[in-house]
Amino acid sequence: MSLIVQKFGGSSVKDAERIKNVARIIAETYLKGNDVIVVLSAQGDTTDELIEKAQEVNRSPSKREMDMLLATGEQISVALCAMALEAMGLPCVSLAAWQVGIQSTGVHSDARIKKIDSERIRSELDQHRIVLVTGFQGVDRIGDVTTLGRGGSDTSAVALAAAFRADLCQIFTDVDGVYTTDPRVVPEARKLEEITYDEMLELASQGAQVLHNRSVELAKKFRVNLEVVSSLERKPGTKVKEVTKVEKTNIAGVAKDTSIARVALIGLQHNPGVAFQVFDLLSKHNINVDVILQSIGREDTKDITFTIHKKDQDETEQILNDHKDVLKFDHIEADDKIGKVSIVGAGLMSNCGVAAKMFEALYESGINIQMINTSEIRVSVLLDEDDVNKAVKAIHAKFFDEI
Amino acid sequence: MSLIVQKFGGSSVKDAERIKNVARIIAETYLKGNDVIVVLSAQGDTTDELIEKAQEVNRSPSKREMDMLLATGEQISVALCAMALEAMGLPCVSLAAWQVGIQSTGVHSDARIKKIDSERIRSELDQHRIVLVTGFQGVDRIGDVTTLGRGGSDTSAVALAAAFRADLCQIFTDVDGVYTTDPRVVPEARKLEEITYDEMLELASQGAQVLHNRSVELAKKFRVNLEVVSSLERKPGTKVKEVTKVEKTNIAGVAKDTSIARVALIGLQHNPGVAFQVFDLLSKHNINVDVILQSIGREDTKDITFTIHKKDQDETEQILNDHKDVLKFDHIEADDKIGKVSIVGAGLMSNCGVAAKMFEALYESGINIQMINTSEIRVSVLLDEDDVNKAVKAIHAKFFDEI
Repeated sequence: MSLIVQKFGGSSVKDAERIKNVARIIAETYLKGNDVIVVLSAQGDTTDELIEKAQEVNRSPSKREMDMLLATGEQISVALCAMALEAMGLPCVSLAAWQVGIQSTGVHSDARIKKIDSERIRSELDQHRIVLVTGFQGVDRIGDVTTLGRGGSDTSAVALAAAFRADLCQIFTDVDGVYTTDPRVVPEARKLEEITYDEMLELASQGAQVLHNRSVELAKKFRVNLEVVSSLERKPGTKVKEVTKVEKTNIAGVAKDTSIARVALIGLQHNPGVAFQVFDLLSKHNINVDVILQSIGREDTKDITFTIHKKDQDETEQILNDHKDVLKFDHIEADDKIGKVSIVGAGLMSNCGVAAKMFEALYESGINIQMINTSEIRVSVLLDEDDVNKAVKAIHAKFFDEI
Repeated sequence: MSLIVQKFGGSSVKDAERIKNVARIIAETYLKGNDVIVVLSAQGDTTDELIEKAQEVNRSPSKREMDMLLATGEQISVALCAMALEAMGLPCVSLAAWQVGIQSTGVHSDARIKKIDSERIRSELDQHRIVLVTGFQGVDRIGDVTTLGRGGSDTSAVALAAAFRADLCQIFTDVDGVYTTDPRVVPEARKLEEITYDEMLELASQGAQVLHNRSVELAKKFRVNLEVVSSLERKPGTKVKEVTKVEKTNIAGVAKDTSIARVALIGLQHNPGVAFQVFDLLSKHNINVDVILQSIGREDTKDITFTIHKKDQDETEQILNDHKDVLKFDHIEADDKIGKVSIVGAGLMSNCGVAAKMFEALYESGINIQMINTSEIRVSVLLDEDDVNKAVKAIHAKFFDEI
């Protein structure tokens, strides 16, 4: 008998038919004799509908109340799915994050899980009940509802798998695994049988929607056996693990991200510590900075360019302008018509031909590279937003067509 | 400075405009220097929509999961209303029943409030925040979400008013007070300036929708200053209190209830204790029995007739049939095409002319009385469902037109 955590996203539970389908998958796992913990997201468009309701009464509601509002979405999902399981005669119980004791930090709309109490779930599993838990949410020290930010339900699932030492954590989605790139852009994209945590992490960080990077980080940290699998078709998905078969000589995939904006601080003083000041300030406002480039400007000044999520652009400019006196820059340049394309593969940087091959593909397609950023297993380039899909196609063809 | 509890029902918060209106009423009270605790129901049709969603996956879901599902409705209301208050620049915080610590029994869909923790709300009030609490719900001993049954939000409001010794508990509705009868049936109905707890209790028990009887019971027990007032118009409502002005010589009102069904057990053995057996059995299944009539049947048997809520009819027949061997009755007769009309007034039964006047009105209108039931301050008659409105009009005219 194994303990299996199964997570289903919003599109997998979007209506009664899909919920019944999810119930059948859960039932199959349970009836094989496994303990099952299920993590659910809010139904399809529920979150968007709730955000719209909020906007009607307040254009910029507090994050605390937004969390209180949005948390109802997952609660609806778990209750409905429990009812579907009841209809099949299976013992089950739905639990909200506060009932489980998914304790988080108090950073509303972007909380981190700190600890999961095991008592309630353990007691339900001991009574052979299927346990359904609201994804995406937690409860902070003073008992307020928090949400975990984008991809939060994946994180909930992996955190539960880690806390209960689950034998397997299955992330069910409407795709059937991790692909070498987005199949909607490149129809020739191939499904990967397996991928390392690190590769998945880079792919997720670089815009592959299939898994959120925080969940992959957590899976890597606690060695959670992760699997990305389709909720609509019964076929093998992609396994995410520590080491994959060594035969691989190619990259794992090509990712794109068009949700970013570029901000440049022009004419900064050439003092040590100025970069620290900028990024310390932004991190205090919970703004994540990605690619950073520092360059020499005119007349002994320097420029710092970095990318952020599009949604943070206004706040970032506001914060920087509020501190113009301290930071002493000349002006800000911002651009949200950019995109990022990345290749990811274990050992990529120790094989110098790989990056060159990527640049060659871009050169052959006449695409301008604005910035380059690399890690041990990834090369990313910043491009004009309009060039992104063309770049993904060209790079994917370069790496995968010739095998 | 006073502490005021304000409760708004589902139609008062049904959309963004109504929520903003509610926020203005709350703001007005708060800005006069009062502490304010607000209790909200689910928005307009939310509960019905959630029930429909449940029905699509399970025709008879467990009450536990139903409570988990329905409790999201009030949480959406309090979060949205908090956002509306934020937009007005007012400090506020929304709290679900489990966050407040509204502890209830574990009877899902019909729980009773046992105790309210004061710590969290007290701390928020001390910080001069308006506190918005989800009505209709509680949390039981093991941390499961419960709901309080019909009119539960009124009960939540009165219970909070009692727990915090509020100076006033205002129940806002889409009518502007308690009327001598339903103004939709009798346009001449008059608004009452005040009414006693006992009269309100009987009116509520007998079908007047304006306040739920459990909330009035609680208000009477803890001497809560209650007021029924319109959320749409600024004008005086109806005060519910211990004693009203003595000048009253008339009844307080005429109530109707068409949500009942009549069940008759025919041919019971003439043994002592058989009535106890029947009603003990039903009470164990949480089925409320109202009017009871016992009569001599043919051949040394007896019949017991009683009324219940229409929704309980199927379950009642099922339970009785399951125990036919023990109860030893011949057969069951059930009828859901009946209605009940009641007159309510303090000291009504000590004035023997009052009941006679009611029967006279029915006689003059040619309406058949099927059963009669009385209390210290009430006379109820069971009628054919089709006669109910005609009866209300005739009785109201008899008592109120001649003054």
